[in-house]
Amino acid sequence: MPEYKLIYFDAMGRAELTRWIFKLADIPYTDERIPAEEWPERKKSTPGGTLPVLLVDEQVLRQSMAIARYVAREAGLVPQDNLESALCDALVETVMELQQQMIKIMRSPGDDEEKKTKLQQEFIPNQVEQFFTCLRERLHDREWYCGDQVTWADLAIGRVFCTLVSTQEPLFDKYPDIRSYVEKICALPGIQDWIQTRPETSF
Amino acid sequence: MPEYKLIYFDAMGRAELTRWIFKLADIPYTDERIPAEEWPERKKSTPGGTLPVLLVDEQVLRQSMAIARYVAREAGLVPQDNLESALCDALVETVMELQQQMIKIMRSPGDDEEKKTKLQQEFIPNQVEQFFTCLRERLHDREWYCGDQVTWADLAIGRVFCTLVSTQEPLFDKYPDIRSYVEKICALPGIQDWIQTRPETSF
Repeated sequence: MPEYKLIYFDAMGRAELTRWIFKLADIPYTDERIPAEEWPERKKSTPGGTLPVLLVDEQVLRQSMAIARYVAREAGLVPQDNLESALCDALVETVMELQQQMIKIMRSPGDDEEKKTKLQQEFIPNQVEQFFTCLRERLHDREWYCGDQVTWADLAIGRVFCTLVSTQEPLFDKYPDIRSYVEKICALPGIQDWIQTRPETSF
Repeated sequence: MPEYKLIYFDAMGRAELTRWIFKLADIPYTDERIPAEEWPERKKSTPGGTLPVLLVDEQVLRQSMAIARYVAREAGLVPQDNLESALCDALVETVMELQQQMIKIMRSPGDDEEKKTKLQQEFIPNQVEQFFTCLRERLHDREWYCGDQVTWADLAIGRVFCTLVSTQEPLFDKYPDIRSYVEKICALPGIQDWIQTRPETSF
């Protein structure tokens, strides 16, 4: 097995899905977190000048989605069938877009109450509920998003919604099936332990 | 072979790479272009409410990158090796980001001269030249971006830079090797003909 080093900021952000994949598959890796104050200097020697970066032995791999997909395939978490694999790709893209929109709202200027209202009254009813409705349809006769075993698509959903399950109770009261599904993902071996022991960061 | 229908606006945008892949592989498909004035009505019946959408017989596939990757794999344009395939994924993501940034500048408010100056004096020297420098390094001992045959990564580069080759001559005078590479991609069977006969659109 190659030696893996995942380099990112001290944050979940665009690296956390890859960490989940490593943890579920029990693949050892180095989780290097660059402190914010060191980044301007480190940026100069970082290929492409952006994070995350995955080192696979000496080989540099960039772009968070490419990194996560690569590790997921190594871990057997990508369906063999091309169309099933593409459905996972599309789901992960969609979930990551939701996450980026959510982070954008939370990081926008303005006071916290205003941002919370925007999340509660605009983002969740429009974006998240629409997504949950499609997800419900997909999951009504399936245990996992694709095929009959967990894939990186399920992990992407767990990664983005695991915190919301406890902070957005009224939302999940309307979608108890989605709550059970998210909780099942977060209770997977390796994942539950990671959620409880990972460094505490806001995003 | 399944029946393919690619649904998008009357534009290149996020669907054009998939069209190139279909053309190079000579895979028949329906290229449905929704006129802008019909979109508000069609949006209601479009799964997820966004374009592009690819219909694979009855199956709906969303997200432009997932669609392009799926068709590329069907067409044999994705390397078998997982790491090589991930390098292609990362390259395509990077190229598409450059394209989105370029479109964002061109569509921003303000007069055309201002936008051209921004492209010429900021975007091209910073973003594009940095990318070309990395690309040059990668290509110095390779004919194609990955392995020894054309992949969808090469097509992504051709798709984004084929117009710039003729409109940004001073840039390509500094990178004659990149110019030859882009021209080689645009002269591929199926591609050359498509560029000459495709519907004329700005983006």
